[in-house]
Amino acid sequence: MTAESLRKILDRLARGELELDAALDAIKHLPFEDLGFAKVDHHRALRVGVPEVVFGPGKTPEQIIAIARALRAGGESVIVTRLNADSAAALREAMPDLTYDAHARLAFWRRPDLVVSGRGTIVVAAAGTADLPVAEEAALTAELMGNTVDRVYDVGVAGIHRLFAHHERLVQASVLIVVAGMEGALPSVVGGLVDRPLIAVPTSIGYGASFGGLAALLAMLNSCAAGVTVVNIDNGFGAGYAASLINRAR
Amino acid sequence: MTAESLRKILDRLARGELELDAALDAIKHLPFEDLGFAKVDHHRALRVGVPEVVFGPGKTPEQIIAIARALRAGGESVIVTRLNADSAAALREAMPDLTYDAHARLAFWRRPDLVVSGRGTIVVAAAGTADLPVAEEAALTAELMGNTVDRVYDVGVAGIHRLFAHHERLVQASVLIVVAGMEGALPSVVGGLVDRPLIAVPTSIGYGASFGGLAALLAMLNSCAAGVTVVNIDNGFGAGYAASLINRAR
Amino acid sequence: MTAESLRKILDRLARGELELDAALDAIKHLPFEDLGFAKVDHHRALRVGVPEVVFGPGKTPEQIIAIARALRAGGESVIVTRLNADSAAALREAMPDLTYDAHARLAFWRRPDLVVSGRGTIVVAAAGTADLPVAEEAALTAELMGNTVDRVYDVGVAGIHRLFAHHERLVQASVLIVVAGMEGALPSVVGGLVDRPLIAVPTSIGYGASFGGLAALLAMLNSCAAGVTVVNIDNGFGAGYAASLINRAR
Amino acid sequence: MTAESLRKILDRLARGELELDAALDAIKHLPFEDLGFAKVDHHRALRVGVPEVVFGPGKTPEQIIAIARALRAGGESVIVTRLNADSAAALREAMPDLTYDAHARLAFWRRPDLVVSGRGTIVVAAAGTADLPVAEEAALTAELMGNTVDRVYDVGVAGIHRLFAHHERLVQASVLIVVAGMEGALPSVVGGLVDRPLIAVPTSIGYGASFGGLAALLAMLNSCAAGVTVVNIDNGFGAGYAASLINRAR
Amino acid sequence: MTAESLRKILDRLARGELELDAALDAIKHLPFEDLGFAKVDHHRALRVGVPEVVFGPGKTPEQIIAIARALRAGGESVIVTRLNADSAAALREAMPDLTYDAHARLAFWRRPDLVVSGRGTIVVAAAGTADLPVAEEAALTAELMGNTVDRVYDVGVAGIHRLFAHHERLVQASVLIVVAGMEGALPSVVGGLVDRPLIAVPTSIGYGASFGGLAALLAMLNSCAAGVTVVNIDNGFGAGYAASLINRAR
Amino acid sequence: MTAESLRKILDRLARGELELDAALDAIKHLPFEDLGFAKVDHHRALRVGVPEVVFGPGKTPEQIIAIARALRAGGESVIVTRLNADSAAALREAMPDLTYDAHARLAFWRRPDLVVSGRGTIVVAAAGTADLPVAEEAALTAELMGNTVDRVYDVGVAGIHRLFAHHERLVQASVLIVVAGMEGALPSVVGGLVDRPLIAVPTSIGYGASFGGLAALLAMLNSCAAGVTVVNIDNGFGAGYAASLINRAR
Amino acid sequence: MTAESLRKILDRLARGELELDAALDAIKHLPFEDLGFAKVDHHRALRVGVPEVVFGPGKTPEQIIAIARALRAGGESVIVTRLNADSAAALREAMPDLTYDAHARLAFWRRPDLVVSGRGTIVVAAAGTADLPVAEEAALTAELMGNTVDRVYDVGVAGIHRLFAHHERLVQASVLIVVAGMEGALPSVVGGLVDRPLIAVPTSIGYGASFGGLAALLAMLNSCAAGVTVVNIDNGFGAGYAASLINRAR
Amino acid sequence: MTAESLRKILDRLARGELELDAALDAIKHLPFEDLGFAKVDHHRALRVGVPEVVFGPGKTPEQIIAIARALRAGGESVIVTRLNADSAAALREAMPDLTYDAHARLAFWRRPDLVVSGRGTIVVAAAGTADLPVAEEAALTAELMGNTVDRVYDVGVAGIHRLFAHHERLVQASVLIVVAGMEGALPSVVGGLVDRPLIAVPTSIGYGASFGGLAALLAMLNSCAAGVTVVNIDNGFGAGYAASLINRAR
Repeated sequence: MTAESLRKILDRLARGELELDAALDAIKHLPFEDLGFAKVDHHRALRVGVPEVVFGPGKTPEQIIAIARALRAGGESVIVTRLNADSAAALREAMPDLTYDAHARLAFWRRPDLVVSGRGTIVVAAAGTADLPVAEEAALTAELMGNTVDRVYDVGVAGIHRLFAHHERLVQASVLIVVAGMEGALPSVVGGLVDRPLIAVPTSIGYGASFGGLAALLAMLNSCAAGVTVVNIDNGFGAGYAASLINRAR
Repeated sequence: MTAESLRKILDRLARGELELDAALDAIKHLPFEDLGFAKVDHHRALRVGVPEVVFGPGKTPEQIIAIARALRAGGESVIVTRLNADSAAALREAMPDLTYDAHARLAFWRRPDLVVSGRGTIVVAAAGTADLPVAEEAALTAELMGNTVDRVYDVGVAGIHRLFAHHERLVQASVLIVVAGMEGALPSVVGGLVDRPLIAVPTSIGYGASFGGLAALLAMLNSCAAGVTVVNIDNGFGAGYAASLINRAR
Repeated sequence: MTAESLRKILDRLARGELELDAALDAIKHLPFEDLGFAKVDHHRALRVGVPEVVFGPGKTPEQIIAIARALRAGGESVIVTRLNADSAAALREAMPDLTYDAHARLAFWRRPDLVVSGRGTIVVAAAGTADLPVAEEAALTAELMGNTVDRVYDVGVAGIHRLFAHHERLVQASVLIVVAGMEGALPSVVGGLVDRPLIAVPTSIGYGASFGGLAALLAMLNSCAAGVTVVNIDNGFGAGYAASLINRAR
Repeated sequence: MTAESLRKILDRLARGELELDAALDAIKHLPFEDLGFAKVDHHRALRVGVPEVVFGPGKTPEQIIAIARALRAGGESVIVTRLNADSAAALREAMPDLTYDAHARLAFWRRPDLVVSGRGTIVVAAAGTADLPVAEEAALTAELMGNTVDRVYDVGVAGIHRLFAHHERLVQASVLIVVAGMEGALPSVVGGLVDRPLIAVPTSIGYGASFGGLAALLAMLNSCAAGVTVVNIDNGFGAGYAASLINRAR
Repeated sequence: MTAESLRKILDRLARGELELDAALDAIKHLPFEDLGFAKVDHHRALRVGVPEVVFGPGKTPEQIIAIARALRAGGESVIVTRLNADSAAALREAMPDLTYDAHARLAFWRRPDLVVSGRGTIVVAAAGTADLPVAEEAALTAELMGNTVDRVYDVGVAGIHRLFAHHERLVQASVLIVVAGMEGALPSVVGGLVDRPLIAVPTSIGYGASFGGLAALLAMLNSCAAGVTVVNIDNGFGAGYAASLINRAR
Repeated sequence: MTAESLRKILDRLARGELELDAALDAIKHLPFEDLGFAKVDHHRALRVGVPEVVFGPGKTPEQIIAIARALRAGGESVIVTRLNADSAAALREAMPDLTYDAHARLAFWRRPDLVVSGRGTIVVAAAGTADLPVAEEAALTAELMGNTVDRVYDVGVAGIHRLFAHHERLVQASVLIVVAGMEGALPSVVGGLVDRPLIAVPTSIGYGASFGGLAALLAMLNSCAAGVTVVNIDNGFGAGYAASLINRAR
Repeated sequence: MTAESLRKILDRLARGELELDAALDAIKHLPFEDLGFAKVDHHRALRVGVPEVVFGPGKTPEQIIAIARALRAGGESVIVTRLNADSAAALREAMPDLTYDAHARLAFWRRPDLVVSGRGTIVVAAAGTADLPVAEEAALTAELMGNTVDRVYDVGVAGIHRLFAHHERLVQASVLIVVAGMEGALPSVVGGLVDRPLIAVPTSIGYGASFGGLAALLAMLNSCAAGVTVVNIDNGFGAGYAASLINRAR
Repeated sequence: MTAESLRKILDRLARGELELDAALDAIKHLPFEDLGFAKVDHHRALRVGVPEVVFGPGKTPEQIIAIARALRAGGESVIVTRLNADSAAALREAMPDLTYDAHARLAFWRRPDLVVSGRGTIVVAAAGTADLPVAEEAALTAELMGNTVDRVYDVGVAGIHRLFAHHERLVQASVLIVVAGMEGALPSVVGGLVDRPLIAVPTSIGYGASFGGLAALLAMLNSCAAGVTVVNIDNGFGAGYAASLINRAR
């Protein structure tokens, strides 16, 4: 430990076992993080409680299994996202203790000692069923970071009465994650109904002038509802992570 | 008149005043529209009843006055849009019989013999007050083409209860024009509430990642509400024109 | 039923079976749609008569068959679009009562009780044979929503005499859907020949600077022909749906 | 008041002054917000404590003064941003009780009864002096919404020792707003040093391939630091607002 | 024939066999092309001598073979471009009388009665070997339209002495087609050496910021060499066709 | 003269006045163009007969006058394009012997000894009156390079009968320049009517999704009419220059 | 001095004047740069010898004068770039000891004690005269950082013999800066002629599809000449700075 | 040899064996490079010592093996990059004397007589492990061109203490290559720590708004750290090559 290293050097200097210049030199040549910048390292500490995420696309089933195994061995919760059929089948066979969600196309393993530590409820709202994999990535990330999550799915703005049927759940949220593809209008509507921090997640769902999620991304960045912030296209993990930070007491 | 021209040639041929070949040649060399393609020309006929539009930006006050005078002399209704302060003042002085709308930054002249001929009511809904000039351009175009117009303004999705307070007016529309800048979400929400044709008009209102209205345009093209069609950014005239065509009986 | 729920509460209040405050509270806590906003729900009513569409791309043959079966069981007409060879073969075998169109790469099932309810004829014009799958998606959607459809195919602007040979059919349309890829010029030309609402559909046909249909989309949004509105790239369904709304009597 | 309206109807019904059907009808025709959806309206309540913002660009000095006067009359704090020299001079003369900040190019008026209600400190960090107007817009918004704000300015990543000199201030923040133009790298670096919610604000500072702030925006959306969310280019107000929501106790 | 049709109608009118109004009506209802606009149809006549082109990408080997067979049956020369290995093997087996060029990834069939009719030589210059398929598509199109073609390949601007070694061939051209991917600089350099029409063809060769040929396309459109015109990315056929038109005597 | 320089060196070597090595060295150090590559220099020769073009935008009236005077002193024809009102007035006063065209916003001076040398007629067709400045830049460039030019203006595709009324003029062209903004459809339509080389010129006329002429540019690059090549947005000079090259005998 | 600070703490600890824990704490709370990371600060040292640059655009003449005065007072050389006429006149009057270059639109002040320290010659080549302001910004930056600069201007690729006339100067360079707008081809051609590091500078010179320098930027990034690296559009200062670093001995 | 050719001609002229005009003609018709522009050809000479690079993507295993064999036969070092699993396996079997690096997905062959000739050390720093293939391409290119390379990997800015732990290695570099995807911030941070030339390499690592590396590319072009130049996305070879040029003594 770094604080220890520094303490030892100073201790030896105080006891006369070390010359002043040698101590000075030793301190200068400690690795950076050894100099007591615990705060710099808190990040790693923070990471305790952060699930590991494996993105499925572009990896072979073998690679996914190898990475997932290595991560789970680290003791932390693990999410494997956007699995295609082949990878899902292979993963299911290789790691049967993972939980599988065929609709959301993901698999995950929850560390057994996980407790709820978040202040309030994180609502994850999603516009369409096609947005579900990204929404679940956000929801699971938040859950595996110790939060209670309330899923409000299939509430796209074109059938806005469905959204309003869940009005109470929305306003009781501590933080909201709102996931939408295509025109990405849902965060603006929800943002007008609540007075809590809202993280908008554009998805790549759509075609043609969706341009891979660009349309939804731009819409969310231009939201007329105050209090809306945005993450990258399809970045369910980032939204879940940021919402968890917001939901921590301080 | 062209049908007349053709008739005369044929008449002279029938009376022997014209040789067969000369008649053939004469017909071939008539201007295209003289050949009796009345349908080709109906467009001009249709244009009777279409107001003339003058876009203010990029024109000097003198140019605007000159064009507006020429157009009004044609007998048709005239709209001058997006007037800056200088042009508005000059136009007001030069053509005091025009009606001025400072907020919408436009001026117009209504032909005296205009009657309502549209089948139902055209609702023009607009998200923010900044979208008003475009919305008014659409509304006035529709009115000056013989339609009853119902304006539902300042109903942006971030305060969706304001939109819902006008629910009845929306569903009674025959055609809807929905105008919005920024994230352009309003057409999707309104489109989910009605079962009538809806023309979405993106505006260039916004900044940064609005990219001059691109964000709203993409959002509208990707609308999850069926029945939504889109016109160019800030094209209030085009929306009013298309809505008028839809609202004509046939 | 929601109107019923409200009636019951008021009835009990009127009969003294319910206190004023309890009634007030009960009304407040009714689900949104229970409050008699029948219009909010008309959308669902409208959907009666709207065919279900399954987009083929990105789905396995098994998924397509499963979805198509589920949809057809709902009693509504069904269209499966942009089928690749494998999916088409599998679907043909699994659901032999669907109608197949190899050229348009789609399959469909028409509900037996479908009647023509549209006011006039919807013309679907397409520039090239490669645009046919999108055009057929539009045409079939319109037909399955109860419209008479007249197909005018292979009339690209580079051989404009072919378009003009069909002049009469174009001008007799009640509504027009004009489908084109590459430079997307056809809607402008047709729009200049007719005085009816025209929905332009850009397709992703093209290569290089077509940028996946962006060239055609921009061209259509900038059409110099008034009365043209635009839907998303390749959105044949949306065009057919909007044209059907326009063609309904009101 | 709307709850009152409903109560009166029910009261009259209970007293037999109103028929059941008439009561039913009356309720259906109440404006939406009259139906007791107080939550829908909470937004307005929330707005108490939110400063009004006037964007200077594109407005004449007269317009700015008129709007600013109207807003201040409402009793709420007011910020006028991105003032050019002419507008600043005019505003200073017309409303001498506003506070002026020439460097940040803004003016503001703080409501006298403002108290600090935010849970912790909001740090506003900015990369360059050119980013200052946007950073101050964020900082003032947060202050005028009842937060303690700590400004850490001129800490661009190219001179990273300057940033590190303020390490303690960064890690003590409850929420961070990080403002940067050009390559937009600062949020990623700061995000790696802290474990608190961080809102990244791209600015339009830059030239050439900055494309009006697009470079910084994309960089921030792609930040490798978890916990970073993003607002629109130059949207200091939005960042200050969202940070204030996060910093409220719940 | 259409002139005939018109003559007959007029003849009958002149002979009194037809009433004036009937003649008028008959003329109006002639198909458009019957009215003697023979020039409208010349396009088809021109097409005699234009090779048919089949683009390989996105087609199965079976489709390519079917199309190629149909086209060759029409008697015109045929080019099949951008063949992948599977399609090439299948085509080679199915149509052994086609000529194959493995490097250029194309196959073609030359109509036996083809003669050289072009005025001068068309030079096709290409920057890199990867540009060869597009260059050959241009060269073969020009040859099969009756032109003498001189190929100057592998003369990219980074080794400009290779280009200069062929200086004489360049300046003797009647028309030049210059093909380049990546930075697309070759047309500017060649355009500065010659005083003849030059058609620039950007290719999609490149990666990263080439953006599928956009870099080369923009470079060519901005060429500082006068006399340069541009076709779509990878459009070798279009360049060969346009060069052939230029090279025809008139 | 360069050939002279080389001859002198060789002459002195032959006469023994120069050592072999000295001659070798002298040749190596001659300026490049001295080495007899007359062809390299033909470009300058060609430029005889090419008018000089001054682009008005971004220059002060004084700068425009200074440049125009310098160019005219060179003896070559001169065109000054896109003049604003101030510059036009100043130029008119300073150089009264220039010809002014207020509508096309340009001025020009024709060298007195100009003769027609082009093979056939160059048709310049333009879609709208707003495209006129670019069209005139093309037409004047072609005229001042010795060509007969036939202007066919205001023939946009939305009123296609106007284009067809000029059918004969189009098909008699030797080369065509087709100018259009907005959706840029005109070159495709004209290209389908003629069998001659056609240069398409997109203009920046339009707004919103025109994106400064990008829409028209992309449309023209994707033209379905073979034989169409394209120049940069608003590049009337380039089109006129290229058309002149095509129209020269060889 | 920081090393001093640390030494003092250790000294007091060794002398027993400070407790171990107090020493530990004191070290932790030293400002970052006090910990002896002199290298972190070398950057500032390096900056000795770097001229200060003031970008003219968007600044009033008064602001430019104020900044220029402040910078010159710092003793370092100063460059003021892209001056408009008003600013140039004002600056010339206010600071007559600056050197003015009307053509390059810049002014500069050279510190009197400047010596040449660069290893070799830096060649600055520019394609057109319009690129001169950027080229001069690069050249002056390099000169004011102690380098010998050789300017090779007006050597655009369309007249490549002009470039070749300067072949010797190019190949004798130690480092090259190549500046070009429009199609940005010059760096590729020069890069093929030399075997030295080459920094390409795209400029915003051009119009239409130049898109503010994007065309040139993409061309340079895709250069087929190895050894070419690129800086931002119009970033003459950055190129001069980087070239100076390369030219320093080490 | 070309100098020889010229010498012979001059020799024969001097000896009277050749007429003056014949000599003149012979010189003019020598191939360009024969005229003694040795410098033009030095490029080829330089290429001695440059490794050959084969890009794996889009090539079959057979093609890769064939090209790699041909290149190695030329005697120069060879790198094969971005190998997929199939190609790697095939190549490993076919050319067992190549060195394989599974993680970096490349293979290479080092010419046996390679010596270190570079002046100092080239540091290659990379942000994430996913950037490794590009970083290794750069590092190997530099090594195979005779440089000592120091790899500093996995030092992304979100964990900046890891970067700082390698501070000494960074500042001792002669040239730096900094590789990063996603937000591309690393070059700005490193550029602020060193005073040496730094080549930034954006990678296509990322998703969504990374747009294939565009985000990182724009960030690097807008770097606030002076001395940073940029190469194309994923262009490890280009960076290694340019760094080697910089590191050569002169």
